[in-house]
Amino acid sequence: MDLRTYIHNHIDADFGDQEFPFSVTRECFEKGHVFTSYSEIPHKVHFLRKGIVEVNIWLGEEEKVLDFFFEHSFFGSYSALLKGTPSDVYIAALTPCEVDTVMYDDMKQAYTKSLMANKLERIETEKLYMKKVQREKELLTLPAEEQYKRIIKEQPQIITEIPVNKIAKYLGIRPESLSRIRKQIIS
Amino acid sequence: MDLRTYIHNHIDADFGDQEFPFSVTRECFEKGHVFTSYSEIPHKVHFLRKGIVEVNIWLGEEEKVLDFFFEHSFFGSYSALLKGTPSDVYIAALTPCEVDTVMYDDMKQAYTKSLMANKLERIETEKLYMKKVQREKELLTLPAEEQYKRIIKEQPQIITEIPVNKIAKYLGIRPESLSRIRKQIIS
Repeated sequence: MDLRTYIHNHIDADFGDQEFPFSVTRECFEKGHVFTSYSEIPHKVHFLRKGIVEVNIWLGEEEKVLDFFFEHSFFGSYSALLKGTPSDVYIAALTPCEVDTVMYDDMKQAYTKSLMANKLERIETEKLYMKKVQREKELLTLPAEEQYKRIIKEQPQIITEIPVNKIAKYLGIRPESLSRIRKQIIS
Repeated sequence: MDLRTYIHNHIDADFGDQEFPFSVTRECFEKGHVFTSYSEIPHKVHFLRKGIVEVNIWLGEEEKVLDFFFEHSFFGSYSALLKGTPSDVYIAALTPCEVDTVMYDDMKQAYTKSLMANKLERIETEKLYMKKVQREKELLTLPAEEQYKRIIKEQPQIITEIPVNKIAKYLGIRPESLSRIRKQIIS
């Protein structure tokens, strides 16, 4: 699905053939492509037409997986974009990716006048917020096994499409511990 | 500061004497007032003109402080409002509070047509999102002492205005451990 169809279906049914209030560039990338490096000042927001993206972060002396994004979602080094600071996350393609890219300056310009741009960003930020709230609750309480069960139920894409070592990094445990948990759940 | 002034100063300078695209009710509450109980389906969003609000949650067998809100911020059981589900948080006044209240159904109605309502919600959700991102990083790495130092630097209001036992609950440690940390930092 391209950005235009996504907006029409999920954000604003009135948005059909009109011009976008920002320019949109379609891009294709290989697996491993780096969208944002550590310390880079980011300038772009991407709509993921196809593929999977991972977001990593160095915390203390360990690199962790902070998040995964799947098709039909927006991604970028969002906190850094909002604050205009260097990125503390690293964003890369876990699979070949097709994206629709918007320059964030263009997007900000659109916010001043465009109802659609504000609706789009409001709704997408609400989704990101709810994802973080869910994650916060998990981090505050759930042991890795419970987090894993929650993922099976609510984000099965993570289980079916992400390599096991990445899932372990996401849960903050060793791959061997994750194998043990998987065996326990299956048996 | 009332909601009108806040919007004019921080959201949309063009918003002056116009009618609000939603109705706003001014309310005053005593310390201890419960804005949202556990399991209640919430219907309201509040702008905090004056006062401090705490948000609590039961996680496992323990009640924790999830968040504090200070004057000139919006609060509500936001995830439950967005999803239309019962609240899993408890929101109460830590001090006497003055608020401007908006019914969330009214707000949703305003989203269909009002540029200002969408801007307001976009910007406020961005702030909430960044707060959660910060918190996630803390929970993933920082020991309580480092979290406390970060709060001194970035949210000194928490240190000066919130009782010590609540701060301990927020950091997920015992009040005695927090006393030890405070002494270490001072010495």
